[in-house]
Amino acid sequence: MDMLKLIKSRRSIRKYKEKIPSDKEIKKILEAGRWAPSGLNNQPWRFLVIKEKEIKEKIAGFSKYGYIIKNTGVIIVVFLDKKRSYHYQKDIMAIGACIQNMLLQAHSLGLGACWLGEILNKRKEIEQLLNIDKNLELMALISLGYPKEKSSSFRLPLKDLLIRPFSLLKSSF
Amino acid sequence: MDMLKLIKSRRSIRKYKEKIPSDKEIKKILEAGRWAPSGLNNQPWRFLVIKEKEIKEKIAGFSKYGYIIKNTGVIIVVFLDKKRSYHYQKDIMAIGACIQNMLLQAHSLGLGACWLGEILNKRKEIEQLLNIDKNLELMALISLGYPKEKSSSFRLPLKDLLIRPFSLLKSSF
Repeated sequence: MDMLKLIKSRRSIRKYKEKIPSDKEIKKILEAGRWAPSGLNNQPWRFLVIKEKEIKEKIAGFSKYGYIIKNTGVIIVVFLDKKRSYHYQKDIMAIGACIQNMLLQAHSLGLGACWLGEILNKRKEIEQLLNIDKNLELMALISLGYPKEKSSSFRLPLKDLLIRPFSLLKSSF
Repeated sequence: MDMLKLIKSRRSIRKYKEKIPSDKEIKKILEAGRWAPSGLNNQPWRFLVIKEKEIKEKIAGFSKYGYIIKNTGVIIVVFLDKKRSYHYQKDIMAIGACIQNMLLQAHSLGLGACWLGEILNKRKEIEQLLNIDKNLELMALISLGYPKEKSSSFRLPLKDLLIRPFSLLKSSF
């Protein structure tokens, strides 16, 4: 497997087949998240796996992307553990790294996933619905399933992301 | 390549051989960062590649990890473009995903990297030193080189990261 190819071919998948990811697959994905880097290795991520139809439907009611949540077999809810937090910005970047590990792992298993962030608008409601400890702060939902669609995307060209060109400079210790 | 193996075998590398990563390698790494996901696909990341010895030495003076910065051939500086930002938390998670893509890509190329976040304590000083536009906010440095050390780490067991066990539940649409 070529890493860059894997990264570039991963897409947000919003439609899923009826076949549900197995616990073994879910565990591999959580395992990928677990091995993300974090500042001072504080590992501020916490996970909740949701499979139950009625809970998914309740969550769906809080999001304009509810149709994705309702039609996925599995949702991984990602939280920041504020007790482990030492630098909010860095901890949130670490959570982003953790989520990306899970998305890449899902893709490498042939699964499709979607990082759902819009739900943060209803953070309090979701935390209450799921009876979440007040030390935990909702960061994202990841919907997970076997892809029933192909999806495409685009990115800005690299030159627009580089503050200054670098190719002409010579590296030196 | 097994994705989970790649994720788990990636370590922070702080000592580098004298051989400098090539522009081709650096571009592959930036390309991996470029293809990260972001909320509304706003792609809030911006990059600056630093190779010049004197600039690295000046940056090193602002960090207690200066010895890493001084002894690496290449530094990728990662910024948030505040003009592209629409939700600070989500944008910062996206930057974390972008950095993780770059770290994994570096590792898959046989390169070592270290995510340096402590430098954020001197954000203003670094932004001034590098003459950075006020729309850009420093997020992290990534040092990059051929590894001259093996490194180890640990993670909390998965059961400590799960808010509630999930294996007994049956998925249902």
